Amino acid sequence: MSAQLTEDQELIVETARSFAQEKLRPNAARWEEEGLDRGVLQELAGLGFGGIYVGEEHGGSGLSRLDAALIFEELSRGCIATAAFLSIHNMCSWMIDSFGSEEQRAEWLPKLTTMEKIASYCLTEPGSGSDAGALRTTAKADGNSQYVINGSKAFISGAGFSDMYVLMCRTGDDGPKGVSTVLVPNETKGLSFGKNEDKMGWRAQPTAIVTFEDCRVPVENRIGPEGEGFKYAMKGLDGGRLNIAACALGGAQDALDRALGYVKERKQFGKRLADFQNTQFVLADMETELAACRALLHAAARKLDAKAPDATKYCAMAKRFVTDASFKVADQALQLHGGYGYLADYEVERIVRDLRVHRILEGTNEIMRVIVSREMLKE
Amino acid sequence: MSAQLTEDQELIVETARSFAQEKLRPNAARWEEEGLDRGVLQELAGLGFGGIYVGEEHGGSGLSRLDAALIFEELSRGCIATAAFLSIHNMCSWMIDSFGSEEQRAEWLPKLTTMEKIASYCLTEPGSGSDAGALRTTAKADGNSQYVINGSKAFISGAGFSDMYVLMCRTGDDGPKGVSTVLVPNETKGLSFGKNEDKMGWRAQPTAIVTFEDCRVPVENRIGPEGEGFKYAMKGLDGGRLNIAACALGGAQDALDRALGYVKERKQFGKRLADFQNTQFVLADMETELAACRALLHAAARKLDAKAPDATKYCAMAKRFVTDASFKVADQALQLHGGYGYLADYEVERIVRDLRVHRILEGTNEIMRVIVSREMLKE
Amino acid sequence: MSAQLTEDQELIVETARSFAQEKLRPNAARWEEEGLDRGVLQELAGLGFGGIYVGEEHGGSGLSRLDAALIFEELSRGCIATAAFLSIHNMCSWMIDSFGSEEQRAEWLPKLTTMEKIASYCLTEPGSGSDAGALRTTAKADGNSQYVINGSKAFISGAGFSDMYVLMCRTGDDGPKGVSTVLVPNETKGLSFGKNEDKMGWRAQPTAIVTFEDCRVPVENRIGPEGEGFKYAMKGLDGGRLNIAACALGGAQDALDRALGYVKERKQFGKRLADFQNTQFVLADMETELAACRALLHAAARKLDAKAPDATKYCAMAKRFVTDASFKVADQALQLHGGYGYLADYEVERIVRDLRVHRILEGTNEIMRVIVSREMLKE
Amino acid sequence: MSAQLTEDQELIVETARSFAQEKLRPNAARWEEEGLDRGVLQELAGLGFGGIYVGEEHGGSGLSRLDAALIFEELSRGCIATAAFLSIHNMCSWMIDSFGSEEQRAEWLPKLTTMEKIASYCLTEPGSGSDAGALRTTAKADGNSQYVINGSKAFISGAGFSDMYVLMCRTGDDGPKGVSTVLVPNETKGLSFGKNEDKMGWRAQPTAIVTFEDCRVPVENRIGPEGEGFKYAMKGLDGGRLNIAACALGGAQDALDRALGYVKERKQFGKRLADFQNTQFVLADMETELAACRALLHAAARKLDAKAPDATKYCAMAKRFVTDASFKVADQALQLHGGYGYLADYEVERIVRDLRVHRILEGTNEIMRVIVSREMLKE
Repeated sequence: MSAQLTEDQELIVETARSFAQEKLRPNAARWEEEGLDRGVLQELAGLGFGGIYVGEEHGGSGLSRLDAALIFEELSRGCIATAAFLSIHNMCSWMIDSFGSEEQRAEWLPKLTTMEKIASYCLTEPGSGSDAGALRTTAKADGNSQYVINGSKAFISGAGFSDMYVLMCRTGDDGPKGVSTVLVPNETKGLSFGKNEDKMGWRAQPTAIVTFEDCRVPVENRIGPEGEGFKYAMKGLDGGRLNIAACALGGAQDALDRALGYVKERKQFGKRLADFQNTQFVLADMETELAACRALLHAAARKLDAKAPDATKYCAMAKRFVTDASFKVADQALQLHGGYGYLADYEVERIVRDLRVHRILEGTNEIMRVIVSREMLKE
Repeated sequence: MSAQLTEDQELIVETARSFAQEKLRPNAARWEEEGLDRGVLQELAGLGFGGIYVGEEHGGSGLSRLDAALIFEELSRGCIATAAFLSIHNMCSWMIDSFGSEEQRAEWLPKLTTMEKIASYCLTEPGSGSDAGALRTTAKADGNSQYVINGSKAFISGAGFSDMYVLMCRTGDDGPKGVSTVLVPNETKGLSFGKNEDKMGWRAQPTAIVTFEDCRVPVENRIGPEGEGFKYAMKGLDGGRLNIAACALGGAQDALDRALGYVKERKQFGKRLADFQNTQFVLADMETELAACRALLHAAARKLDAKAPDATKYCAMAKRFVTDASFKVADQALQLHGGYGYLADYEVERIVRDLRVHRILEGTNEIMRVIVSREMLKE
Repeated sequence: MSAQLTEDQELIVETARSFAQEKLRPNAARWEEEGLDRGVLQELAGLGFGGIYVGEEHGGSGLSRLDAALIFEELSRGCIATAAFLSIHNMCSWMIDSFGSEEQRAEWLPKLTTMEKIASYCLTEPGSGSDAGALRTTAKADGNSQYVINGSKAFISGAGFSDMYVLMCRTGDDGPKGVSTVLVPNETKGLSFGKNEDKMGWRAQPTAIVTFEDCRVPVENRIGPEGEGFKYAMKGLDGGRLNIAACALGGAQDALDRALGYVKERKQFGKRLADFQNTQFVLADMETELAACRALLHAAARKLDAKAPDATKYCAMAKRFVTDASFKVADQALQLHGGYGYLADYEVERIVRDLRVHRILEGTNEIMRVIVSREMLKE
Repeated sequence: MSAQLTEDQELIVETARSFAQEKLRPNAARWEEEGLDRGVLQELAGLGFGGIYVGEEHGGSGLSRLDAALIFEELSRGCIATAAFLSIHNMCSWMIDSFGSEEQRAEWLPKLTTMEKIASYCLTEPGSGSDAGALRTTAKADGNSQYVINGSKAFISGAGFSDMYVLMCRTGDDGPKGVSTVLVPNETKGLSFGKNEDKMGWRAQPTAIVTFEDCRVPVENRIGPEGEGFKYAMKGLDGGRLNIAACALGGAQDALDRALGYVKERKQFGKRLADFQNTQFVLADMETELAACRALLHAAARKLDAKAPDATKYCAMAKRFVTDASFKVADQALQLHGGYGYLADYEVERIVRDLRVHRILEGTNEIMRVIVSREMLKE
């Protein structure tokens, strides 16, 4: 893996890898049909992956962003959709741990770290993809005790499956400064879900529009003061980007593993595919791309852990680079399989489909370029 | 389109385009679930597209390879899977017209050109993808009147749907010279079909393994003399490659059309996506790639029509270049849609999935490079 | 070459090719040191290449843009710098033939078509690269008979070498509508030239800043009415772009020819480089790229010849695509030569250096994307 | 730079950077004309850069491969040719320190670490580029005391400039096991140098064929036992590749720095180039590529320092990835300068020319793919 990991990290990697190879990878194809497996998610929580950055006092693992990158890469080598879903849940538990009151933390975190309760994150709206500050879902205070929430959120992973929704909504004026964060439990009246979106990949995850119609939640469900929500969302993005990159990397590594196995077996024109120079060169480029991805991803994670001033730039660079390269590697792995690569049975095509969204999520790769260049021109 | 088309060709383009836009494009998503529509295929035959290169005396259209490239591009702008399936049927009718006896032509072509009978092509086997000469399905003469056929063919488009199978099988020794071409009707005893493959794309087309167990067909079903089959297969490849390229191009053009429409409507940060310079540059590159594809494809088709000595090289170049570029353009179109590009509703993700196989079919793009370089080093 | 050329065109190609291979290619390296060879330019004029699009009545060849693309590709296979310089001269002779008065045509064209007089084109200024309409060189009328010209032009090919300068200058208000075209002979008082620029390539061509200090020329030297100059410049661009692309293509073809020769000879690890699959695949990609370039270039030239409404878009696409791909092919040719590719003796590195500017000249490739996308969004 | 450097490393970086920015960068253009500056090389030695990995007991700095990567990147931001030349000298001093006898170390290292004596490395021959084991220069023992050396070495940096040549030559049978390492001082009779090669870049460095005609050197000049030379050469390669990559990275970083400065100043169409979105996206991609390069390079250097079993694979990956990406970044930097990028005055074109050879040297990037895939298929 890397000359630079600590023994603890090596152990984390090994734990995640074993679980992924034994419990996730053999089932990933099936879950595409059947959806997420709640029991397996809870087993993952049992390994400490339900509250990766949550403090240990509330059942979390208290790990770093680099640790998380290692975990999500390994899990994603087993099942991208499960790993990526887990990363969203972790963003939610992190947000509550980081910005919630002691009461909120004590109430929610034990359930979230065990995944007795599963959380989804509601930021994006139909009209505001990359322009998160333009969101329009409102939470109006009705007296001092309740918010009445109205609006719609789009592309919500886990919609209808999760037990709780961490919602970014408008409690004040236009713009980023009017946004607050409110927890909306699944059983809230007026909460409803659109049809499960028919997506290219990530099909194990239910994705739908979440609609709030006069949903009432106690004001105690607000995380932090009013108007701080956008700031929390922004703070969550760096880590979210690392995770989405780590999941892409794991998927690509799985695709490369599969291709390597295939070309050693498959013969054409009397030779193994592995004996053709073009195969060798393509494999070398795939390996090299993934090594560069891993190195950049880890560098960015260390920056974020160290709160380096250029951490945001690095996270954006890692997200852009890793998700583009990982998709390309998966695509090459498919090609190395020839016609069989096009068949679901060989599972590479699913990886390609799954990874396609990593170039879009958590800020499109175009937005990453906006962020990186803004930092460069600011310097 | 092009300064270089004749009036007849402009008319062909217009006919194909209207049909594709009205009858194919609105249904392509549905057909992905429901499969090919036999009635629509017969309507296409009614336009002359069931026997594009078949002589007019047997109900064909007697058109050129360039004409076919124009047709398949336009049809594929409506439905890639339907257009590509039609191109296979046309390869079958072409093979019978070109190499069959007068009796065979009189018997089969009228049904094929009207698509009363639909034909599939059986070349690839599970163990021989790009190495077609290594095929192992046998047709043994039982006396003078019948062949007994045994073996399996893989990746057969239309398996179980088509009425007739144009089969490449071994009537003699190892190697290309032992291959013959035999027609096997659907009702032949011993003919069976594997499960419909779960594929990344081309999902409207049934694809399965076709198995021959002691299938008996009259020797009159052989096209041409024994041992000529591989030669026919090779002669069919150039045109097949043009068509697979033309279908890729049409799919990519549809993706670009959709993206162009989307970016003119969708707003982010208060501006249309079309107003961002990056969007403009990506659009320009997509348009340019497709213009280059079209120009190279037409040049190759003209070469093939003119029986130019470098026609095979040109067809291989066109297949490689166009299918790679078209996939890339479709992928860029998806990206321009942001998260919506990942949803089936927007139909671009289907185009990406469909086009993925064009880089593999009819000789992988790696085999194209083998062919092109062989010609270069021969020169 | 192409199934689509007329016999006349085949002859033009043959003429240009022979001359290029015999008289240009063996000298290109030397001219990099010594500069352009005026005698050879006049020999080229003797073949009809001094006034390619000039009417035959004034000594021109009256050829089409497609013919010119064929000619410049072939000449550039011999010497890129000479061919590209010749294309500039032809733009000048075309402008006088197209927009000049009968007197101007009778006076200038016979000398230009024979290249007794050589012309340079002065549009770009130090402060206005791609933003040609912002030019600031002024021609002020002094009474009715003379213009007094002041200002500077940058990147002028042939500065100090040419006999006449076709100058775009401001006779009126700001913006494109204040621009006129004026001929400034070499001997004009106040005309001076900066130091010869030390450039990466195109080193055979002198390039310098041209400065006009109170240069006086008769108003009869103005081509067409006042204020029309920018329009002429714009009209010249489409053809200029085709030529710059054609010259890039010829250079790349020469690089590929050299690489092909080299890999057939050079051995490593006991085999010819040509016997390694990677070499073969790279060669195939190079050949394919150039075939696509040629097809797109010719399509664009036919559009321009046919005055198709999308000719400008096609010329911009061809310029962008061909110059990028040609540079890449030349770069690959260098790599195929290994260490020898880095040495001037093998001449490929010069081609790489020469072609680098083709991605910048005649509108940068970024400007091409602006043009193409503008046309797309207008549609 | 990186969250992961030690304070010592930060200091090394700072030292190298200051020197490079003050003493190298302002002179790099001049040295292209005038050649290497021996005094400046000795100043670099004064900073400890003449024997970077040589033990401190002989005047070396005793630094790691990671330290070296940091140093060479910074120096190359000032002058690629000087930095790369210095890396060759360091390979020579490393080889003597690692494999020489105590007497050899005591004799040579003090002079080499101060660069009182400058060393060149002679491995490649005209007929054996990547196939180093096939070398044919012979050293025949004449009695017990002397070798008589005959043969030619190609592409020798510093030929005729250096004071000593570390020569790989054949003392035994064919193949790698017959190769020994012998030191040949400049004043040796029979040693001669071909003409200085006219190269695309690295022009400050003299490069020539070195010819040995009956050159006599004492057998004491042999490093280690007979037949060990190829092993030393192989051991030197990993570090050499890191350095060649580090120099590429530094050059690319300089190009990016220059481009960033330029686009903030230069205006077109009334806006700074930096205000165009395409400029921003290109800058972001350049920054991202270099961040990935740096991360992978440092990961590989740490592997080599830790003698990790996959260090060779990592060094090959880093060399391939970094040199390709750095060239691309330099090329993009040139493009961002528009026409000015083509002029020597702006110095970016020199960087492009210099970096071109990094994709070829120290094993071509094709050989890197051979190495990487061999390791993958071995696993």
